[in-house]
Amino acid sequence: MTRTILVTGGARSGKSHIAEARTLDLGRPAVYIATAQAFDSEMEARIAEHQARRGPEWITHSEPLDLVGALRVTDGRPRLVDCLTLWLTNLMLGGHDWRAAGRALIAALPEQRAPVVFVTNELGAGIVPENRLAREFRDAAGLLNQWVAAAAEEVTLAVCGLPLKVK
Amino acid sequence: MTRTILVTGGARSGKSHIAEARTLDLGRPAVYIATAQAFDSEMEARIAEHQARRGPEWITHSEPLDLVGALRVTDGRPRLVDCLTLWLTNLMLGGHDWRAAGRALIAALPEQRAPVVFVTNELGAGIVPENRLAREFRDAAGLLNQWVAAAAEEVTLAVCGLPLKVK
Amino acid sequence: MTRTILVTGGARSGKSHIAEARTLDLGRPAVYIATAQAFDSEMEARIAEHQARRGPEWITHSEPLDLVGALRVTDGRPRLVDCLTLWLTNLMLGGHDWRAAGRALIAALPEQRAPVVFVTNELGAGIVPENRLAREFRDAAGLLNQWVAAAAEEVTLAVCGLPLKVK
Repeated sequence: MTRTILVTGGARSGKSHIAEARTLDLGRPAVYIATAQAFDSEMEARIAEHQARRGPEWITHSEPLDLVGALRVTDGRPRLVDCLTLWLTNLMLGGHDWRAAGRALIAALPEQRAPVVFVTNELGAGIVPENRLAREFRDAAGLLNQWVAAAAEEVTLAVCGLPLKVK
Repeated sequence: MTRTILVTGGARSGKSHIAEARTLDLGRPAVYIATAQAFDSEMEARIAEHQARRGPEWITHSEPLDLVGALRVTDGRPRLVDCLTLWLTNLMLGGHDWRAAGRALIAALPEQRAPVVFVTNELGAGIVPENRLAREFRDAAGLLNQWVAAAAEEVTLAVCGLPLKVK
Repeated sequence: MTRTILVTGGARSGKSHIAEARTLDLGRPAVYIATAQAFDSEMEARIAEHQARRGPEWITHSEPLDLVGALRVTDGRPRLVDCLTLWLTNLMLGGHDWRAAGRALIAALPEQRAPVVFVTNELGAGIVPENRLAREFRDAAGLLNQWVAAAAEEVTLAVCGLPLKVK
């Protein structure tokens, strides 16, 4: 049985939509684990838009930091984590050790008894950012993506809303 | 018969070249619909370079805004629209409703009696821009790409000048 | 026999790791041609990290500018050039003619008697940089990637540490 799935893509590449459809393929209702925290009105609007698009087939949990804990609440239902990049943002802004948190997440994946679909972002295909923090974040996000992709049975790149199979 | 084709890619990924070859495969001469407007000398140089590369097999039309109107001028010849991202720029800078214009373009595609090849840009795979307008433009460009890709029979991602089949 | 291989990808996409594995597949020990120059401590740290990951199966040469000369030192061993983007940076910062250097590199490829694996970066899939020099560098990097990809028998895009076959 497919256990861990990663859907990656740039901003507005349709990755959330692809990941939602893939999760519901695996069972309904499904659990939506939102890592987003609304720091400003732009973020609030984006979260509201995502929630409005999802229908009643979703049980929503909000968890900005403790993903391993959030994955315990399941009852055999498939889980969608949207997204790893915001989780990393929350970890770094909160002064947490993102490498330790990432390793703990990877270590928890083989114990899962229901599928987990992760959404993440491609951040590294633009020009090198002048801002040092932006470079560090980009590096961390890329490494986290590699770790999850290595552990995943299925990896998909979203391009213009379409899925491109990577693994 | 293949009707709508989308070729996407980053800057200098060879997407225009791939789209031109694909269009000429579908019929010669072909119609080139240029959405570019030269606002500065850098843009002028790029437009001139693109024109110089195209040979006498192209009938060039310039149309910064009314793509649906431009697509009516055809006589059965394949059309290349280069590119959707500049079209979106023109719409937004001119204060037009880009969502309405995008929907009208999608609605006009099934009526086409000759193929249309669209070139567009991947803008969303870099770090999140600090500039709010840049984020809004990136979001709009991503959505427009998704709409056209959903309507297209064929979608190609240009990577280092090479075509990668997405749909 | 496969002669020229290109591995491209965004920052932290795992491209160096994929290219190293591919090079060692072609013969051991292999020659590592490093184009990096440490201008600051961040760069030094990254170079040291890359070196530490490579084992004793690598013979390392440092060559920031004369890649054609560096490729002569071989004895039939496969060569890994990491990376083209830093080579381009060195050429441009040093006031050299990067187009001439790029053409000379392409011209030297058919003479190679052992495989060459190039690593390069995807830089063009973010928002258009406001900085003109950044745009010029992005354009040059994209063109160089196209030239090498056209000459290569094998082109791979790294996504989340995984190889996606392009050619």
